[in-house]
Amino acid sequence: MKEYIEPRVLKGFRDFLPQAEIVRRNLTENIENTFRSFGFVPIDTPALEYSEILLGKGGGETEKQIYRFKDNGDRDVALRFDLTVPFARYVALHKAELAFPFKRYHIGKVWRGENTQRGRYREFTQCDFDIIGSDSPAADFEIILMIYSILNNLGTGHISIKINHRGLFNRFLLHIGQRENSVEILRAVDKLAKTGLEETNKNLCEISGESAAGLILDFIGAGKKNETESFEETLERIISLSGGPSPESDRLMAIKNYMNDAGNDCSFYLDPSITRGLDYYTGIVFETFLNDLPDIGSICSGGRYDNLAGLYTKNNISGVGSSIGLDRMIAALESLQRLPAGSDLSSAAVVCLKPEDSGLYQKYASFLRNAGINCEVFSDAAESTDPKHLVKQFVLAEKKGIHWMIIPGENNDKNQFTLRDLKSRQNTNSLSLNDIVNIINK
Amino acid sequence: MKEYIEPRVLKGFRDFLPQAEIVRRNLTENIENTFRSFGFVPIDTPALEYSEILLGKGGGETEKQIYRFKDNGDRDVALRFDLTVPFARYVALHKAELAFPFKRYHIGKVWRGENTQRGRYREFTQCDFDIIGSDSPAADFEIILMIYSILNNLGTGHISIKINHRGLFNRFLLHIGQRENSVEILRAVDKLAKTGLEETNKNLCEISGESAAGLILDFIGAGKKNETESFEETLERIISLSGGPSPESDRLMAIKNYMNDAGNDCSFYLDPSITRGLDYYTGIVFETFLNDLPDIGSICSGGRYDNLAGLYTKNNISGVGSSIGLDRMIAALESLQRLPAGSDLSSAAVVCLKPEDSGLYQKYASFLRNAGINCEVFSDAAESTDPKHLVKQFVLAEKKGIHWMIIPGENNDKNQFTLRDLKSRQNTNSLSLNDIVNIINK
Repeated sequence: MKEYIEPRVLKGFRDFLPQAEIVRRNLTENIENTFRSFGFVPIDTPALEYSEILLGKGGGETEKQIYRFKDNGDRDVALRFDLTVPFARYVALHKAELAFPFKRYHIGKVWRGENTQRGRYREFTQCDFDIIGSDSPAADFEIILMIYSILNNLGTGHISIKINHRGLFNRFLLHIGQRENSVEILRAVDKLAKTGLEETNKNLCEISGESAAGLILDFIGAGKKNETESFEETLERIISLSGGPSPESDRLMAIKNYMNDAGNDCSFYLDPSITRGLDYYTGIVFETFLNDLPDIGSICSGGRYDNLAGLYTKNNISGVGSSIGLDRMIAALESLQRLPAGSDLSSAAVVCLKPEDSGLYQKYASFLRNAGINCEVFSDAAESTDPKHLVKQFVLAEKKGIHWMIIPGENNDKNQFTLRDLKSRQNTNSLSLNDIVNIINK
Repeated sequence: MKEYIEPRVLKGFRDFLPQAEIVRRNLTENIENTFRSFGFVPIDTPALEYSEILLGKGGGETEKQIYRFKDNGDRDVALRFDLTVPFARYVALHKAELAFPFKRYHIGKVWRGENTQRGRYREFTQCDFDIIGSDSPAADFEIILMIYSILNNLGTGHISIKINHRGLFNRFLLHIGQRENSVEILRAVDKLAKTGLEETNKNLCEISGESAAGLILDFIGAGKKNETESFEETLERIISLSGGPSPESDRLMAIKNYMNDAGNDCSFYLDPSITRGLDYYTGIVFETFLNDLPDIGSICSGGRYDNLAGLYTKNNISGVGSSIGLDRMIAALESLQRLPAGSDLSSAAVVCLKPEDSGLYQKYASFLRNAGINCEVFSDAAESTDPKHLVKQFVLAEKKGIHWMIIPGENNDKNQFTLRDLKSRQNTNSLSLNDIVNIINK
């Protein structure tokens, strides 16, 4: 007896069936079009890199999750676990060949051996976009505006982009004498949404004492809804708590003015509780929430960093950037029932009446393809005298989401095509291919 | 002193700079559009699979080249080295969810630890397309016609698609009493182009004796130019040498008739020396050559197989398919100087006169983007009173391949924009944004 290898995929990895893959490709294309409309250009980097480069100074969580191994040449290599580290390495390597400020996007797969509970995958797609080589608040604003445009073009419905400035937070901590506790305080604040006000207060009291904890909660506006306080009001409050105006508060003000001038400020909030866990951000930071689906958490986050490629080069390269997780976005759109259906890629098909006429059927299909219509040719046999076979082809076409069926006429007469609309199940007779193109393209 | 990690990529792996990546994406899109115009749908599979699945029965060359390792859960895993094996596993796993005949394409990266000499890469992109679940010669013809269409749409110039039928070759070998030597004979014939007629003759004589070798060389038309013999003439010769008409010769005749009916037969040749080394092909096989660049070898090959997924399921799934190597295609188009330049993604940019007006500049850019024009905003400072700064922005724009610069007027007057054509270096003054859209979209 023959033994078969069980067909299966690794836990946390996925096959994509055509309908799902079409949806993914349409969304990616949509996002990419927005990137390009802002003049961002694409790059790509290898899936596999030297482990030393990906791990940098090494780091607990990353090291545990990374797919790392020795290749056949005994090199210590690993699969990329994000697109940021490869980008830093890329910029250090190619800085002489790039035009700065450099605005790039990168859409690609990354791999993490994470726990697969809670719908996390071990292979997933990220869409990163950054402006590097510019310190301007206008660059900060552009990235935020792009998030707005991307989500708007994807049809996610109303969103809230919550912005903060980590430098201003640090200035405030310095002002209240808590600068040396900043890492722990940021970490505690970052967990506010998860752990709740009481728990956060308790943590902060342990770190910095009761009176400082009160000021910190005041600063981050804990317990307040952002929506009840305007950007300006919040800014005024945190300027006062941090000891007066500063370059950081000026930058936030500049960004707010850009929003007003650009005319779409309704989705932007100043939220001093946003800190972002990752410690390479030094300037503004932001998170994005879907108003109709707040529980899914931030679907697009990012911020400004002083020194992107510091591990690989002595040149300081600052920038601002953001990242969208494609899978999370798809899950969100699905929950909202706003995921566009994978449209029929093949809007038409030529039925097969006589297999020996398949060459002619391809000729008819070519005519439609040249007119911009995707057109399949059915190749499998059907006896022209058996109407059941035609029905079988209609059923297959419906299953494939095809809209129009082209039925050649008796003796392939060039004015005797029948066009069947599979949605209305109506036939139109005595057509030429030109008539058919006109009807479909109408 | 700080120690830096040397920024480098693994041998055989590549970074893509924006211009190169734009070219790759444009080509991929072009190929994908042709796939879709024939009603083919996309799928995707994981980069990483169980080694057992990718290696199947095991195999010398593959096993040496594959990136294989133990993951953190001690699973024996490997990176896919082609898109065929994952497709076979995919079909075995999902056959109940697919509509047959199933026409799919798959564009993705694959990894092989090959020798990197001779311009081979260890990470490269393949574009596979197959029709499975159909035994019809019309499916064979469709795949061949698609190769023709893909290359035609890519603008490769004239091509020659050389076709043969492995079953007919085997029938011929049976007829001359050499069936048991078929694997070795196929291998020797496959090397004809590389080793030359004399060497091939010597090899064949060793395998099957002098008289059979003569018949084999006669069958494959060794020493003849295909172009001097018509498809029909070649077919007649090999029918006679293989003992008369057969289902295999009937299939070749059917395909030839389809070509005639479809009206584009000038690129197709019957070449009995084409055998394809890989042993899973059982029916027709084909290779594709660029007439203006024959030395690069076949750029698109494939064939029909009886049993795609036999390792993973007892269901017999036959099909026909082909594969294009994107890197080789790009190299070929480059040699032919027919590679379309990476067009400017951002056709326009708004200059920055006053950084504090960046919000307005984004508003202007939005107007253009909404009219379908890719428009960047320059964010970095230039003093409005210093004309040198404007020149610097023009230089950056030219470096980025931007065509149009939008220069806001004094006090941002809505009818006082200047449009600079960076190709002609001409300015047009006193324009509204609407005027600008009309000029650019003209």
